[in-house]
Amino acid sequence: MYRTHTCGALNAAHVGQEVTLAGWVQKTRDKGFLIWADLRDRYGITQLIFDEQRTVAQVFQQAKSLGREYVIQVKGTVIERESKNPNMPTGDIEILVAELTILNEAQLPPFTIEDETDGGEDLRMKYRYLDIRRNPVKNALLFRHKVAMEVRNYLSSLDFCEIETPYLIKSTPEGARDFVVPSRMNEGQFYALPQSPQTFKQLLMVGGMDKYFQIVKCFRDEDLRADRQPEFTQIDCEMAFVEQEDILHVFEGLTRHLLKTLKGIEVAEFPRMTYEYAMKTYGNDKPDIRFDMKFGELNAVAQHKDFGVFNAAELVVGIAVPGCAGYSRKEIDALIDWVKRPQIGAQGMVYVKYETDGTLKSSVDKFYDQTDLKKWAEATQAQPGDLILVLSGAAHKTRSQLSALRMEMATRLGLRKPDEFAPLWVVDFPLLEWDEESGRYHAMHHPFTSPKPEDKALLQTDPGKVRANAYDMVLNGNEIGGGSIRIHDKALQAEMFSLLGFTKEQAEAQFGFLMNAFQFGAPPHGGLAFGLDRLVAILGGQETIRDFIAFPKNNSGRDVMIDAPSPIDDAQLSELHIRLA
Amino acid sequence: MYRTHTCGALNAAHVGQEVTLAGWVQKTRDKGFLIWADLRDRYGITQLIFDEQRTVAQVFQQAKSLGREYVIQVKGTVIERESKNPNMPTGDIEILVAELTILNEAQLPPFTIEDETDGGEDLRMKYRYLDIRRNPVKNALLFRHKVAMEVRNYLSSLDFCEIETPYLIKSTPEGARDFVVPSRMNEGQFYALPQSPQTFKQLLMVGGMDKYFQIVKCFRDEDLRADRQPEFTQIDCEMAFVEQEDILHVFEGLTRHLLKTLKGIEVAEFPRMTYEYAMKTYGNDKPDIRFDMKFGELNAVAQHKDFGVFNAAELVVGIAVPGCAGYSRKEIDALIDWVKRPQIGAQGMVYVKYETDGTLKSSVDKFYDQTDLKKWAEATQAQPGDLILVLSGAAHKTRSQLSALRMEMATRLGLRKPDEFAPLWVVDFPLLEWDEESGRYHAMHHPFTSPKPEDKALLQTDPGKVRANAYDMVLNGNEIGGGSIRIHDKALQAEMFSLLGFTKEQAEAQFGFLMNAFQFGAPPHGGLAFGLDRLVAILGGQETIRDFIAFPKNNSGRDVMIDAPSPIDDAQLSELHIRLA
Repeated sequence: MYRTHTCGALNAAHVGQEVTLAGWVQKTRDKGFLIWADLRDRYGITQLIFDEQRTVAQVFQQAKSLGREYVIQVKGTVIERESKNPNMPTGDIEILVAELTILNEAQLPPFTIEDETDGGEDLRMKYRYLDIRRNPVKNALLFRHKVAMEVRNYLSSLDFCEIETPYLIKSTPEGARDFVVPSRMNEGQFYALPQSPQTFKQLLMVGGMDKYFQIVKCFRDEDLRADRQPEFTQIDCEMAFVEQEDILHVFEGLTRHLLKTLKGIEVAEFPRMTYEYAMKTYGNDKPDIRFDMKFGELNAVAQHKDFGVFNAAELVVGIAVPGCAGYSRKEIDALIDWVKRPQIGAQGMVYVKYETDGTLKSSVDKFYDQTDLKKWAEATQAQPGDLILVLSGAAHKTRSQLSALRMEMATRLGLRKPDEFAPLWVVDFPLLEWDEESGRYHAMHHPFTSPKPEDKALLQTDPGKVRANAYDMVLNGNEIGGGSIRIHDKALQAEMFSLLGFTKEQAEAQFGFLMNAFQFGAPPHGGLAFGLDRLVAILGGQETIRDFIAFPKNNSGRDVMIDAPSPIDDAQLSELHIRLA
Repeated sequence: MYRTHTCGALNAAHVGQEVTLAGWVQKTRDKGFLIWADLRDRYGITQLIFDEQRTVAQVFQQAKSLGREYVIQVKGTVIERESKNPNMPTGDIEILVAELTILNEAQLPPFTIEDETDGGEDLRMKYRYLDIRRNPVKNALLFRHKVAMEVRNYLSSLDFCEIETPYLIKSTPEGARDFVVPSRMNEGQFYALPQSPQTFKQLLMVGGMDKYFQIVKCFRDEDLRADRQPEFTQIDCEMAFVEQEDILHVFEGLTRHLLKTLKGIEVAEFPRMTYEYAMKTYGNDKPDIRFDMKFGELNAVAQHKDFGVFNAAELVVGIAVPGCAGYSRKEIDALIDWVKRPQIGAQGMVYVKYETDGTLKSSVDKFYDQTDLKKWAEATQAQPGDLILVLSGAAHKTRSQLSALRMEMATRLGLRKPDEFAPLWVVDFPLLEWDEESGRYHAMHHPFTSPKPEDKALLQTDPGKVRANAYDMVLNGNEIGGGSIRIHDKALQAEMFSLLGFTKEQAEAQFGFLMNAFQFGAPPHGGLAFGLDRLVAILGGQETIRDFIAFPKNNSGRDVMIDAPSPIDDAQLSELHIRLA
């Protein structure tokens, strides 16, 4: 047996016991006649002491050779420390070592294995197995496990059944981003890796499984950005005989359970807002409502004066940034530069300082008097001391710019607190969105989403106006989950495919299996999917999901852990050639 | 809300309540003025009654149109049944229906949705979503979920952390059976799908995660046989600072926990036997020990007489089949034909009937007298009334033939009882096996398995004799799990690759990432992996694992659920061409 205890287990109650520990040498301190070493494992750190007086000479000499990250085993006696460390669970004791075995030597690690390391990101990614030894990454992986266990146990307690769906499947029309997998055993045949188990879970509902979930990998062969991996993990759920209300109820319960058990936080019933309201009020369908700064539309009060820029704009809209009326000219200029950056793309910005004395001072005083500006303050719910920032232009674009500015100001003001949680539902998403490039409608969620019954008549006359039974769960400015009530009727599903520009033959070829299944008694059903890593990252109070992934791929899509994915070798390549030819 | 109760929830206590149910019409019975329908969902069946006297005319007419597998919603009153069915949880009541909504009509299903169906396998696979509605398949999926939950909760309670490892990885030397995945975003680059997360879990041990598990898909592009899928699920585990004994202890505990919680069965400490003993005694490294029929070697007592066949044989070996001394000549001839089939390949078979009067009668009475045959009976531990069956030839082949015969006789005698569980450990596997075809050694488990320390010296002199720290868990004649203590030392790992015929450069190119990691402080570690579906099938008392898989692929490797995997389309194909050229 390598150890009697872990390195986090021993305390004053164990004094006098003979123990065996194993782990990594975190650091050593050599005082000549005394040597201390911190021994680390996943569970904690225990201090070892080698004493020239009390330790046999050979062990004492060996202790002098210990380097950082050596793997060792020690036998010794638990003794009380002379100078205790109240900040460590094991801080009251140390081990007087009698026997020492070096299990494995270690090269000097390329960065320090400390909470705050001196290693840059590239280096830490290259030596991910060393990065994982650091508390922040180790704790992130442990926390992710805890979240997954809570999800599984909570859903199981509600009769959800986790069912594995296949990873090697037939390619679907979302196929542009499918990874394809040639099969050597079936020449000329390919599988695809699923972008989600959507159609499988619908078939499980047709199959009567009633409540399904799965924590499942999804695959997308697309451009890699930060925090975007070609493979990602979803908490995928589906229920039969449900309306939207049932689904919101169950998964609000899940998130509330996670917040309570993992963070000790009780949250009230989730607010709900329509997509339309969210876009008008926050310029965004995933608003961060930990803070206000709601949009105030100023068209009525700012147009029809002499300011041509506003008069020409489709939308004039502003936010009141709390307590920032004192911004200097320089600070405001920097903000103007910020909104003009290509990533944001505003042409300019108007500001109004709502001074604490009640007067208003703006960059457009030439065109607007105090009465005018007072109306702006009302529309943006500004208080004395606030700074009103106003953008204008095409409605959709301007809202999106102001949304970015709102988030930026919140970040600067420290309003995006990682330990505060403000979940909400955004509902009534449009069913379709018009795509200029292809000149046709796309499904905003996916082609299996059902229109709201009351909007069905619009499908033929004004499809863009049709609202869907679709919903997103939003937490702290992130969409953490989304779903919809599905179509369960073959005729309606066929109509939907036709709206999306599929010919009857294409729809049949690609989705016949699903529509045919609908003819054998499909129940009404719906569901949703959470992005596991985003959820975990937000609950864990982190900006990045990368730390929660054991072996993330870097931005080039290469597996940094084991170098690049190997180009297929020559023999395999020519074999594949022959098959494809 | 679609329902107030499920179809398994109502009983006599609910009589008088107004309820709403939804589900599938299992069957209807029309008596003219009374119509009964069985309404089914995942949770059970509830009887509905439509009464010409008490049901409004329109609903009564609608009820006449109900077909099998229609999806309906009913509102009505729970009433006591006139003729109760004590075999059904809901058998005391029925619902007098007041309102009926047809949620979806259904075509007549191509086979009956009953426990014993009239549908053949191909049909059931084609309409898997209908097959899943049948209790045996539905219950298999629910049972699988339960097993997975028990595994997760048990291992979590022991501080194991489930960590997801990547599915898109670099190809490894086992690569001959790797699926490759071309990346469109990184031209000319390929990923591979992992055959197991072996190297990743070892890196997690180097990373200090200490106790890892994962229920994970593995992929193998190989010939498909019955019950073999190109993707399959493993319970994958690894621990640091352990010896073989620690691992056997933990996972014996897991299996015992599963047997207790899922089957209500307490099993004693698992017997252990060496690979060598298992091969000699059962002709097999995964012996079914629910029954005896141990091999008795007869060389000493059957050779050096006048029977040339035995004299020429490397091995003469027999089993005593209990209570079969009364077999007729015809039955024995059929057995001889059975062992001569090409799948078994024996040249012939000798038998001895150990009559209940104590006399022995054999097919080789010409060569052996009662004293001789008595010795055979002793060697095979035969009792009066048993039938001794003897095979001879080359040792390895003969053992394997007799093992097949032993299993066949056990099946015929009903000794392979699905509700009896006899787990054991097989230990001390050889490290290497000689492959005639390639003229070199292969790793019997995998190249990361460590030799037994006491056998290390043999690595240079007699590699075939080296035993590994490798073990299999065997349950009822199936290997349900296997693993080993790993090499954690770079030099030993390099020596191992060299033994396996890798050049230094090849080993470095393919496994440099792992060996380099060993240089930064790798702890001793080891683990094991269970085949989840085989484990579930055995615990569930089933021969086949297919029922436990939501959407199995059939023997041609095509996804029967959604037809064949699509050949890559023309545009994609030419794109891939360009990239490969």
